[in-house]
Amino acid sequence: MLHIFFLLSLILTSAHVLAQDFCVANLASGIVTPSGYPCKMETNLTSDDFAFSGLGLAGNTSNIINASVTPAFVAQYPGVNGLGISAARLDLAPGGVVPMHTHPGATELLYVVHGHITAGFISSANKVYLKTLNKGDVMVFPQGLLHFQINAAGRRPSLAIVTFNSPNPGLQILDFALFANDLPSSLLEKSTFLDDAQVKKLKGVLGGTG
Amino acid sequence: MLHIFFLLSLILTSAHVLAQDFCVANLASGIVTPSGYPCKMETNLTSDDFAFSGLGLAGNTSNIINASVTPAFVAQYPGVNGLGISAARLDLAPGGVVPMHTHPGATELLYVVHGHITAGFISSANKVYLKTLNKGDVMVFPQGLLHFQINAAGRRPSLAIVTFNSPNPGLQILDFALFANDLPSSLLEKSTFLDDAQVKKLKGVLGGTG
Amino acid sequence: MLHIFFLLSLILTSAHVLAQDFCVANLASGIVTPSGYPCKMETNLTSDDFAFSGLGLAGNTSNIINASVTPAFVAQYPGVNGLGISAARLDLAPGGVVPMHTHPGATELLYVVHGHITAGFISSANKVYLKTLNKGDVMVFPQGLLHFQINAAGRRPSLAIVTFNSPNPGLQILDFALFANDLPSSLLEKSTFLDDAQVKKLKGVLGGTG
Amino acid sequence: MLHIFFLLSLILTSAHVLAQDFCVANLASGIVTPSGYPCKMETNLTSDDFAFSGLGLAGNTSNIINASVTPAFVAQYPGVNGLGISAARLDLAPGGVVPMHTHPGATELLYVVHGHITAGFISSANKVYLKTLNKGDVMVFPQGLLHFQINAAGRRPSLAIVTFNSPNPGLQILDFALFANDLPSSLLEKSTFLDDAQVKKLKGVLGGTG
Amino acid sequence: MLHIFFLLSLILTSAHVLAQDFCVANLASGIVTPSGYPCKMETNLTSDDFAFSGLGLAGNTSNIINASVTPAFVAQYPGVNGLGISAARLDLAPGGVVPMHTHPGATELLYVVHGHITAGFISSANKVYLKTLNKGDVMVFPQGLLHFQINAAGRRPSLAIVTFNSPNPGLQILDFALFANDLPSSLLEKSTFLDDAQVKKLKGVLGGTG
Amino acid sequence: MLHIFFLLSLILTSAHVLAQDFCVANLASGIVTPSGYPCKMETNLTSDDFAFSGLGLAGNTSNIINASVTPAFVAQYPGVNGLGISAARLDLAPGGVVPMHTHPGATELLYVVHGHITAGFISSANKVYLKTLNKGDVMVFPQGLLHFQINAAGRRPSLAIVTFNSPNPGLQILDFALFANDLPSSLLEKSTFLDDAQVKKLKGVLGGTG
Repeated sequence: MLHIFFLLSLILTSAHVLAQDFCVANLASGIVTPSGYPCKMETNLTSDDFAFSGLGLAGNTSNIINASVTPAFVAQYPGVNGLGISAARLDLAPGGVVPMHTHPGATELLYVVHGHITAGFISSANKVYLKTLNKGDVMVFPQGLLHFQINAAGRRPSLAIVTFNSPNPGLQILDFALFANDLPSSLLEKSTFLDDAQVKKLKGVLGGTG
Repeated sequence: MLHIFFLLSLILTSAHVLAQDFCVANLASGIVTPSGYPCKMETNLTSDDFAFSGLGLAGNTSNIINASVTPAFVAQYPGVNGLGISAARLDLAPGGVVPMHTHPGATELLYVVHGHITAGFISSANKVYLKTLNKGDVMVFPQGLLHFQINAAGRRPSLAIVTFNSPNPGLQILDFALFANDLPSSLLEKSTFLDDAQVKKLKGVLGGTG
Repeated sequence: MLHIFFLLSLILTSAHVLAQDFCVANLASGIVTPSGYPCKMETNLTSDDFAFSGLGLAGNTSNIINASVTPAFVAQYPGVNGLGISAARLDLAPGGVVPMHTHPGATELLYVVHGHITAGFISSANKVYLKTLNKGDVMVFPQGLLHFQINAAGRRPSLAIVTFNSPNPGLQILDFALFANDLPSSLLEKSTFLDDAQVKKLKGVLGGTG
Repeated sequence: MLHIFFLLSLILTSAHVLAQDFCVANLASGIVTPSGYPCKMETNLTSDDFAFSGLGLAGNTSNIINASVTPAFVAQYPGVNGLGISAARLDLAPGGVVPMHTHPGATELLYVVHGHITAGFISSANKVYLKTLNKGDVMVFPQGLLHFQINAAGRRPSLAIVTFNSPNPGLQILDFALFANDLPSSLLEKSTFLDDAQVKKLKGVLGGTG
Repeated sequence: MLHIFFLLSLILTSAHVLAQDFCVANLASGIVTPSGYPCKMETNLTSDDFAFSGLGLAGNTSNIINASVTPAFVAQYPGVNGLGISAARLDLAPGGVVPMHTHPGATELLYVVHGHITAGFISSANKVYLKTLNKGDVMVFPQGLLHFQINAAGRRPSLAIVTFNSPNPGLQILDFALFANDLPSSLLEKSTFLDDAQVKKLKGVLGGTG
Repeated sequence: MLHIFFLLSLILTSAHVLAQDFCVANLASGIVTPSGYPCKMETNLTSDDFAFSGLGLAGNTSNIINASVTPAFVAQYPGVNGLGISAARLDLAPGGVVPMHTHPGATELLYVVHGHITAGFISSANKVYLKTLNKGDVMVFPQGLLHFQINAAGRRPSLAIVTFNSPNPGLQILDFALFANDLPSSLLEKSTFLDDAQVKKLKGVLGGTG
């Protein structure tokens, strides 16, 4: 019986040689396409290609925002390539803030591991959805909308895990986008209505020029 | 022959009774789904359901931004429902600006009908892509990224037509999102690093509270 | 200036009346479509529509599997409708197991909140990817593949949060699918090669007939 | 043990109340959306909702094309709603032809059940891919391209089953599109370079006006 | 006139140089991406790239399941790459069975070419949809759900053609996934509630270890 | 403060190294996939990669159709790769016509820059949607359906910009598809019901053989 079954096995599995249940990114290939990176061969894969331990370590929050974002996007975690999902870790010291930002290509779901986090997003209709979340709460931030997270009330650090419905959600932090590059101040001021003094001050802090 | 062919016609077209080459929005249905609005019956449709003349008229630019945005999204132009495309008209008087904004759910392609437009967008890597466009030029603004358009150099009005790869691209204007609602100033300042005076000033202009 | 800006605001926001940044499910509508539920009107929405506290409470693990699955799918958490994401909470008492199962329509990302979890999935090529995960680790389970989670080594309860790239990932638990319905034993045995005694035993436990 | 397991069952299946493994079309609802028809409740479904026997009967080929197309699209076969697949039966008497046509929204895969079928399609680069298929052969017709099937050589009837990667592929038969409606002959001739006599002749046969 | 038209032809077809109506897989490239294989150049393609004769030959059913599955997935049939469709042939000798399995990434549509086939699938709600199909019948198996096909009643061989809405649907046969690899028996038994004797017996037959 | 913020900047931007807000086509790579071309590195990109000036120049309409189509598809405009949008310019001299054609993979939105254009499309139900458009009007042509544009009434040239919801919409011009290749006349006539004389005449003009 064994013999016969193996024969069958061969027939049936011929379809699998190039099957694509998944597509662990070959980051070293030097190729990226609109759908993601080329796949490693399954024969070379191990369990470690699908697990990631980089979110287990607290980020360093000794900085001006008293917070830290540790990504597990496809560039850090090749196993999610082509699978439409990724994650990140948010550490928020007391008073810490993940500044106003968007993810151009993904919806975000936040889960509070511990602590209290005040989170908000703003819709295209300019309506604010604001909520103070406690341990165990989740909140969803629809794709592409401005949002932020603050450990406002807390006297203790807060930790959140966020997941995205894309292996590569992108991250556009408002202050960095406006003040940390060479966008000429005249155009920036005209397109944001911010005062020249305000623009100059934040460009100074963030290293912007122009 | 005629007789026989009509018989065939009946057989073949039975598949068409509910065919969905398109799905003109029944806005009056009171229903919206993630994929769009319910469809009008094809028997009730005319050519006018697929054409739209609202972009033919110049918008009023006698306002603080010396500019105007006239949308032809699904709410104005029900024919694009479910078809993955829509458009808008940008009128820019001399010095006019379409302020810094994002479209959370669509890529934008801009075509300059006449005049000169300086347009820019900022990537997730905080790099600025800035270009002064002339009549006939096109420029693409990838989904969800901050961008703006200015009639900077012009002494004459400029006109652009923009199209989107979504019938409902959304539009989040940065100043409106930050300053035209009830987002508390303390949270806004903490998440944007803007000065309190700056926030209060723009909230005053745009009618924001909190 | 205020006056003029409000005029502009009216022009610009006319596009927003029916904008769809999101589509909170109107579960009471009695309608479901392939893309999800009809949307509630944005004017009726509050922050509570986007947050969910049901994952904050430990599930009851006093059962045969010493484990519990608490879903935050669209049926429990209407805010994720149309947004391509959802979540669930796994409580695993010592020795607890989330039995072999698939999600027919979504990839899963697991994050270990505390404890140790041995998780595995099996590819189309019949290769096993098995890993014991510690606090803070993540692991991805590609769409539609058989997988399970066990608190094998632990003397303490383990907690994991799993997220999916679908608001409605589905859940097909192997034992329930095989033994908890009226699938005739003869067909079941023929299609699974399980012995009649094994089938009868598990049908007995799980309430299956036929 | 039984008791405990049922308790678990209740917890686990609460996620299923509105699960959407499938979405059998409620054609009687009077609603269609871009993603398809509203779903029937699973509690009302039987096996018959997923099976279809309408392709088992030979179509009537006693007509001018000596052929017949029997669709199993969502309108005939509600079980495929939202599932991204559908089928049709092609009966080709000797000399029969399925005339030049396109499916605007789907790729087609043809399988020859019996007989010989000469099939062809034309690419955007105007290259012809032409093949005489025998019993058991398959051929793929990429989305939206002109194609046709002919029982050219045969002295016996041929039968093919075609499937589509859409529940509603659409069907635009070239002759019907050009000659079986009220498209004014002047516009038709100018846009196709066909002679007036040719246009008038085929309009006469197919019932076209204008 | 000829001269002028050719001039036009050049202008118009410049858009076609890299047009992608289709993307026949270059399997020899050694590259796979989440969207499939790189495309062969259209200039090198012939009709044979789009046709496939491998389903015309009966599979060998002299094996333990008295059945055979012959795939025409992208690995065997490169023409379907990127086109969202593929097929397979099921040969079922009397009493033959295609064992319980899932396709992780595709919906299946089965067409009975000849004979009688009893087919069933199980939903996320653990409901069984079971049907004995006759020649010419079709049945749909929604994505990712457990299903099987049996030539139960037949005294003659049965033949079915199945198609998928993916060029690479995957195939996870339950017995192979559970018993034909190195998944430790302890974990397998704990996650499936199968008895140790049952597990050992089937591991023995199928070559599993651990 | 500067020092600390830069530290943060490093942490936060580690996620960006391989971010994919966009994917400008590397046409020189010699690789195409179903999702498009490989991406150029962002470090090598400039504003010119996202802008395109090729639609600013009038096409040559001194040809038999008195019209010209200038594409800005991904092959001409690599910046739209992967972004789901592209464009083309239509120049129509008085009496000019863009002949009956389809775009197999995209919906089209036409905007009249100047002049008058009579445009029409035909649905799967063989219904004609015909409209004479004026300066500033838009009209949508659903994916895969036959359509045409004519400068019928005009004594002056007309100009339209069309956009597509695909970077590579394809273009199948009916006359070229039927008469400008080696499709045998016998098959062509049988599948289109066109007379032999008509076929021979147009094959002669367009260089078809067979």
